[in-house]
Amino acid sequence: MDFRFETDSVGRKKVPAEAYYGVQSLRAKENFNMTGKSIPAVQIRSLAEIKKACAVTNAKAGGLDREVAQAIAEACDEILNGRFHDQFIVDQIQGGAGTSTNMNANEVIANIALGLLGREKGEYQYCHPNDHVNKAQSTNDVYPTSLKISLYRTGLELLDKLNELYEALMAKSREFKDVLKIGRTQLMDAVPITLGQEFHAYATVVKRDRSRIQNAIKELLFINMGATAIGTGINASEYYEKHIVSALSEVSGLPLKPCEDMVDGTQNIDGFSVVSSALKTSAISLSKMANDIRLMNSGPKAGLGEITIPAKQNGSSIMPGKINPVIPEVLNQCAFAVIGNDVTVSMACEGGQLELNAFEPVVFNRIFESMTLMINGIDTFVHNCVKDIAANRQTCEDLLYHSTGFVTALCPVIGYKKAAQIAKDFMEEGTPILEGALACGVSKNQLDRILDESRFMPQFATE
Amino acid sequence: MDFRFETDSVGRKKVPAEAYYGVQSLRAKENFNMTGKSIPAVQIRSLAEIKKACAVTNAKAGGLDREVAQAIAEACDEILNGRFHDQFIVDQIQGGAGTSTNMNANEVIANIALGLLGREKGEYQYCHPNDHVNKAQSTNDVYPTSLKISLYRTGLELLDKLNELYEALMAKSREFKDVLKIGRTQLMDAVPITLGQEFHAYATVVKRDRSRIQNAIKELLFINMGATAIGTGINASEYYEKHIVSALSEVSGLPLKPCEDMVDGTQNIDGFSVVSSALKTSAISLSKMANDIRLMNSGPKAGLGEITIPAKQNGSSIMPGKINPVIPEVLNQCAFAVIGNDVTVSMACEGGQLELNAFEPVVFNRIFESMTLMINGIDTFVHNCVKDIAANRQTCEDLLYHSTGFVTALCPVIGYKKAAQIAKDFMEEGTPILEGALACGVSKNQLDRILDESRFMPQFATE
Amino acid sequence: MDFRFETDSVGRKKVPAEAYYGVQSLRAKENFNMTGKSIPAVQIRSLAEIKKACAVTNAKAGGLDREVAQAIAEACDEILNGRFHDQFIVDQIQGGAGTSTNMNANEVIANIALGLLGREKGEYQYCHPNDHVNKAQSTNDVYPTSLKISLYRTGLELLDKLNELYEALMAKSREFKDVLKIGRTQLMDAVPITLGQEFHAYATVVKRDRSRIQNAIKELLFINMGATAIGTGINASEYYEKHIVSALSEVSGLPLKPCEDMVDGTQNIDGFSVVSSALKTSAISLSKMANDIRLMNSGPKAGLGEITIPAKQNGSSIMPGKINPVIPEVLNQCAFAVIGNDVTVSMACEGGQLELNAFEPVVFNRIFESMTLMINGIDTFVHNCVKDIAANRQTCEDLLYHSTGFVTALCPVIGYKKAAQIAKDFMEEGTPILEGALACGVSKNQLDRILDESRFMPQFATE
Amino acid sequence: MDFRFETDSVGRKKVPAEAYYGVQSLRAKENFNMTGKSIPAVQIRSLAEIKKACAVTNAKAGGLDREVAQAIAEACDEILNGRFHDQFIVDQIQGGAGTSTNMNANEVIANIALGLLGREKGEYQYCHPNDHVNKAQSTNDVYPTSLKISLYRTGLELLDKLNELYEALMAKSREFKDVLKIGRTQLMDAVPITLGQEFHAYATVVKRDRSRIQNAIKELLFINMGATAIGTGINASEYYEKHIVSALSEVSGLPLKPCEDMVDGTQNIDGFSVVSSALKTSAISLSKMANDIRLMNSGPKAGLGEITIPAKQNGSSIMPGKINPVIPEVLNQCAFAVIGNDVTVSMACEGGQLELNAFEPVVFNRIFESMTLMINGIDTFVHNCVKDIAANRQTCEDLLYHSTGFVTALCPVIGYKKAAQIAKDFMEEGTPILEGALACGVSKNQLDRILDESRFMPQFATE
Repeated sequence: MDFRFETDSVGRKKVPAEAYYGVQSLRAKENFNMTGKSIPAVQIRSLAEIKKACAVTNAKAGGLDREVAQAIAEACDEILNGRFHDQFIVDQIQGGAGTSTNMNANEVIANIALGLLGREKGEYQYCHPNDHVNKAQSTNDVYPTSLKISLYRTGLELLDKLNELYEALMAKSREFKDVLKIGRTQLMDAVPITLGQEFHAYATVVKRDRSRIQNAIKELLFINMGATAIGTGINASEYYEKHIVSALSEVSGLPLKPCEDMVDGTQNIDGFSVVSSALKTSAISLSKMANDIRLMNSGPKAGLGEITIPAKQNGSSIMPGKINPVIPEVLNQCAFAVIGNDVTVSMACEGGQLELNAFEPVVFNRIFESMTLMINGIDTFVHNCVKDIAANRQTCEDLLYHSTGFVTALCPVIGYKKAAQIAKDFMEEGTPILEGALACGVSKNQLDRILDESRFMPQFATE
Repeated sequence: MDFRFETDSVGRKKVPAEAYYGVQSLRAKENFNMTGKSIPAVQIRSLAEIKKACAVTNAKAGGLDREVAQAIAEACDEILNGRFHDQFIVDQIQGGAGTSTNMNANEVIANIALGLLGREKGEYQYCHPNDHVNKAQSTNDVYPTSLKISLYRTGLELLDKLNELYEALMAKSREFKDVLKIGRTQLMDAVPITLGQEFHAYATVVKRDRSRIQNAIKELLFINMGATAIGTGINASEYYEKHIVSALSEVSGLPLKPCEDMVDGTQNIDGFSVVSSALKTSAISLSKMANDIRLMNSGPKAGLGEITIPAKQNGSSIMPGKINPVIPEVLNQCAFAVIGNDVTVSMACEGGQLELNAFEPVVFNRIFESMTLMINGIDTFVHNCVKDIAANRQTCEDLLYHSTGFVTALCPVIGYKKAAQIAKDFMEEGTPILEGALACGVSKNQLDRILDESRFMPQFATE
Repeated sequence: MDFRFETDSVGRKKVPAEAYYGVQSLRAKENFNMTGKSIPAVQIRSLAEIKKACAVTNAKAGGLDREVAQAIAEACDEILNGRFHDQFIVDQIQGGAGTSTNMNANEVIANIALGLLGREKGEYQYCHPNDHVNKAQSTNDVYPTSLKISLYRTGLELLDKLNELYEALMAKSREFKDVLKIGRTQLMDAVPITLGQEFHAYATVVKRDRSRIQNAIKELLFINMGATAIGTGINASEYYEKHIVSALSEVSGLPLKPCEDMVDGTQNIDGFSVVSSALKTSAISLSKMANDIRLMNSGPKAGLGEITIPAKQNGSSIMPGKINPVIPEVLNQCAFAVIGNDVTVSMACEGGQLELNAFEPVVFNRIFESMTLMINGIDTFVHNCVKDIAANRQTCEDLLYHSTGFVTALCPVIGYKKAAQIAKDFMEEGTPILEGALACGVSKNQLDRILDESRFMPQFATE
Repeated sequence: MDFRFETDSVGRKKVPAEAYYGVQSLRAKENFNMTGKSIPAVQIRSLAEIKKACAVTNAKAGGLDREVAQAIAEACDEILNGRFHDQFIVDQIQGGAGTSTNMNANEVIANIALGLLGREKGEYQYCHPNDHVNKAQSTNDVYPTSLKISLYRTGLELLDKLNELYEALMAKSREFKDVLKIGRTQLMDAVPITLGQEFHAYATVVKRDRSRIQNAIKELLFINMGATAIGTGINASEYYEKHIVSALSEVSGLPLKPCEDMVDGTQNIDGFSVVSSALKTSAISLSKMANDIRLMNSGPKAGLGEITIPAKQNGSSIMPGKINPVIPEVLNQCAFAVIGNDVTVSMACEGGQLELNAFEPVVFNRIFESMTLMINGIDTFVHNCVKDIAANRQTCEDLLYHSTGFVTALCPVIGYKKAAQIAKDFMEEGTPILEGALACGVSKNQLDRILDESRFMPQFATE
């Protein structure tokens, strides 16, 4: 294999001749073999956008040769066009607060640019990873900015997915609006409800969680470009500081804004905790919904059997005919992962010290995974489960009419105490509830009205 | 001891004659001996407000005798005036989704009202815990509403406390605005910063977290009064449903609003997760700040020693003269408790099933504790620590001038590589950085300018 | 109110004349108003034991006047007899790694001893909190040792409680050994099982968790008495170091052992994480069991209804006759608290720095709460639920015979594919499974054998 | 592309002609696109071992044709030799409690075996995934057994890695045994210690954690093979049940044992929680150690600077000469991930219902990741950090002699109060401690002895 030599503060080192990355990327790859996964494409693209915006702005500020700036910008475009992604070789989880990933980008872009300038790889005197590509930047601003852009964009995908789920649940809410069934509190028979109301409730919490995530990811739009090291803006020109955020907004198409206090914006990464928390709360709601659907689907004969979710695969290697709720089950698991990831994010955020949080890589790794798991989990949940859930109307009706679900409606007429006795007699002696009510002096007319109202009881329409 | 007898579905039971609570409270007390703590005063008051608003509204709706309603309302006023709080005997952590606490309120209020009506305790035919006090209500709506009101109010206290902290940190930011010191990333010497900038960053994150908590607790203003059992509004009159939320707003003075979907609002308690998450994120920021302050205070001789926090007590039972950072340490511990509590809240929220979440009691217990610990922790932090933090200017200056903190400022003139060599020579040979710079061709004028700028480097003013 | 004056490094301060605590306790009380709870009795006693053992050992070592030592030992006995517990005024959660609690003990004991010596409170020249009561000790060794003894003893109580639960579950396992029912995986009908087998499984996991907790708390028996400050044994005599652990074993009646490495034993508090983890794992098992019992008890008419748990209180303020599974629900909540507490313990343990972990107070606070909640939760679970669970044999049988639970047993005879078809025909057309089997060529004899074996299927006896 | 058709309960489906997996694997791949990662090689191997042991045992039991059994066993050997791993296509995180992974194995092995029998892929009448490969098995026993074997083996790797770390720390402990320095509690100067003692403490906690993990993974050796569905052993012959565990022990070379209660062993997966907890406790200790090393390494000029960790890469993209503690930082992040994963494991374990825990896939996914991250994190920590840590003896000595570290040693001679005054005079006026001591009446001889003892203070030798 052919090599070139590169040198950094640690010393001289062989780098594969054809590699666009350089000595610093290579050392980092050797130092960090943690997850086996390099950074995702969305982050690679965000780095290209940042480096492009910086080059353009530095050139305008007069601090960077226009030809070099042009080459850097074109190199970034190449990456944005999907090339050179395999040159990002550093593990997602890394020490150094992201310096290795930033330098990986700097080196790859420098070497692509060198090619565009008619130079050899490694001839950094013509386009240097630090002095040119990273000009007026620090890992302290570039890296968290790339994380924010990546998570914002992935978050938008998640919002779309949550919207799909919302629509699917609303469609079911309409489909099931007249499926009357027993409602349950604490798993015990309570009062009548419709299956449509239940799915409407699921839709509503999804809408609410979606809106929270939408608000949460907006925090990611506040970036600290221009902060350079520790937020003091050292080595950045006045022009650059004034224009870099708007330049990056233009390149990325995102409405980015500068942090109010750059020192704070560099050391405190609470915005990530906010995003992770919103994911967590949504995951909790999704898991509860998945639990309910599994419960209502239980049986098919010896369970509640109020709904049937679509059969997507054989349920058992030994029990023939068994169909299991595999899709909600996988959603539960995504949710558990998201909830655990939030604890990791908490610890990592808490672990920041003084001017920087060195643990941003694992924060990103976990939130990006949480988002991805939610996107994938919801996708299969919508398309392989929710859309084809069927109501078992007969079972719903049977269970309702065998329960004490109507007794409560008698209270306003005969009082809690007598109604309780009717319920007891029904449970213990099998005395029909209507009979008990008549015996307590409820008139036939009253009963008819109560029954009638109970049937149309859901006073809060499903839409 | 004198007794009266009361009966519920389980059977007949002796109740102390002088007790305002009844048989159901008593059974619950026996069933749940968990924390040894009854519900806090703020929750007792919220229950009185709810019951009063309900009585008034039911009377207006024509469903409740005006005299009885009046007695109930007066009984509630007694409780709001601080009386009868010792009659709330049920443990904070309880099974039954809060039914026991709701019934405790119903029984106490019924018996106070009976007295006002000239009746004996237990003569429930004249004012019944269920039929009158709890009229048109269910634990499903009363209990979570009481939790929301309680946490909203406690949350307001926390906002005040966070504001005190913000002001104290801002005052320090101004006081320390010209204390130049070395900034550190990853605990390693980085570039100059002022102590004022650091405290400004702390203040800024506190302001941001405060604002998030403020937004989060607003979710608590959406209540499900009128939902009764499972959100279907069973046994509530149309008038009552239309007016109960505004009636309670009036009684409580809070801008309460009805949930958009009452079924959802009864079964999904994600709003609590949102509040707990906001507390958690703030706790993370506070703990990071406490860690920094302990670190900068470390020494007094063999640590960083950049600041000195006030001595509040002897630090050691064996080491004379030792003063420890006990106040930030207790803030750290509050933060850890809050972060762990959030996990409990997540599990409890996830554990809801179908129409109800039975685990609201522990959700409240944890969030109320989290808020209380934060209030208490911040209070001592502000008054026993932040306000009297002193800067050790000489130490800050000494450390700065012995570090390589100025080397970075040379990069734009001589490039990263040469600057790195100057740093290395300084570290290894002790060659003064200025000397190295001159040797690299930096002119005296350039140096003067760089030094000058570095001193005034903080381009983002502290105010 | 009468006062005396006491002085510490911070300055002079009024102390109530009748108080046995002194200036340091008082300052700590003012600095830390966190939980409102002082340390529990079990910890007060452990401190008395430690101080007594130290006084005796120091006297034998010749480093402490015998008369003073005698007075200290008698003072400790007073505390062990239940007196002076109200003099322990410092909040459980405190900064300073427990110094305030240690000094609270030192001051109270010194003042009691002074009385025994015929001196006034505060005449510390005759018996000094630091020089005499705390002699050869540091908070670094006294405080964690007191935590370990307290948690070990509370842990023993928990073991007893888990044993009660085990016995109750085993009794139910025997009672239900012939209650045949459908087993369910993923909530779907699977194959037959007995209710007895299910309760045997619950008993077995309780036994296993009990054994783990038993092993975990044994780690608490390794103490660092003699380590004094940071584990170097400074200011402790050779005699004292050799004998203090055995002296404390004698006083406490516990088989205490010295840590292998005192520096490690002072800075690393991983043993607490081990205990908390064992509690957490047990809480998980208990919560799963509570969930199952609530599920099998669901109904009474529109749920599984396989068992009925005892009615302990009215279930609803609005729904008459409703009985809820309040006891398992409170156990769930205890479990959630324990699981969240474990996260707090993790963070606190991780937060130790260099020679000490300053966050031991919150570690103790959480583990002690976890143990207490488990003891209380299991107690009510055993006595108010498990012991009186009734099997609904008819329902169990009905559900079993309406399910496809026997189809699996046909596989070895006719293969998975044909068996699946029989199940499908049963589900979709209602074709009886036995009929389908005969149609597939299973002989009557084979069928009888299969049915027979299925009935006695549980090849792993319940005892 | 060529296809064959396969049919399952859901219907007929095209399968790529060359695929060894079948219709069920394919459906699962489509249903679960969660992590993008298939199961790891260690799990693939464990499945091959299980299937081989089952085929052999079934053949001996007379329930499986010897030729078919032989073909299955040989197919498993192929997989154990590293072939066909790409045929395991199902995502690690999946619904269905692992049925898809089990069926993936059954299908791949059946088709390999069919080839060995001279048949075409898909001619399952000659070797059926369910009837032959999965004979006498259920996912309920096969899947958790494969997880246990996989984690046990990965756990052994971790034990080796922890041992490497232990040895490296012990070597440092010996190297640094006479590096006297100031010890710190709560980050404040305390009393003298040696750097060797500190590293000995690190080594000791590593040894202890290693031993706990060793004990924890032993729980994984208890397997439920023979339990088949839900632990009742349905469809397994008596011979098979008696011999399958020992057969698998032989094939795998592991000392496997049957669970005590197969029903319990199938539904309760607490053993995984135990393993995850032990990893968590070790991660906490490692993170604390990494924190300490970063703290002692801080500077190089404006921090503690007591040690220097090796420079492994450039520390900054903007600050020349900066070297950061990237290796301990990545270890911290691994630890945070492990601690968060433990919460996911808790939730998943708690979520089991009745006879099965459907969430085993995510439990495995997280624990396997935790182990892998710890192995990788410790590996780089040992080889890129610990082994080359250098002590800065001069700095250690300077800091020690400028601190009040010796004052404590004066207490036994002059009492706490006078010693505190000496400390105060030193801190405030700069009065040398020795001078203060002489002024308090300590004789020159006494001082010499104290100083001498202090130097050799570490009474607990580092070995």
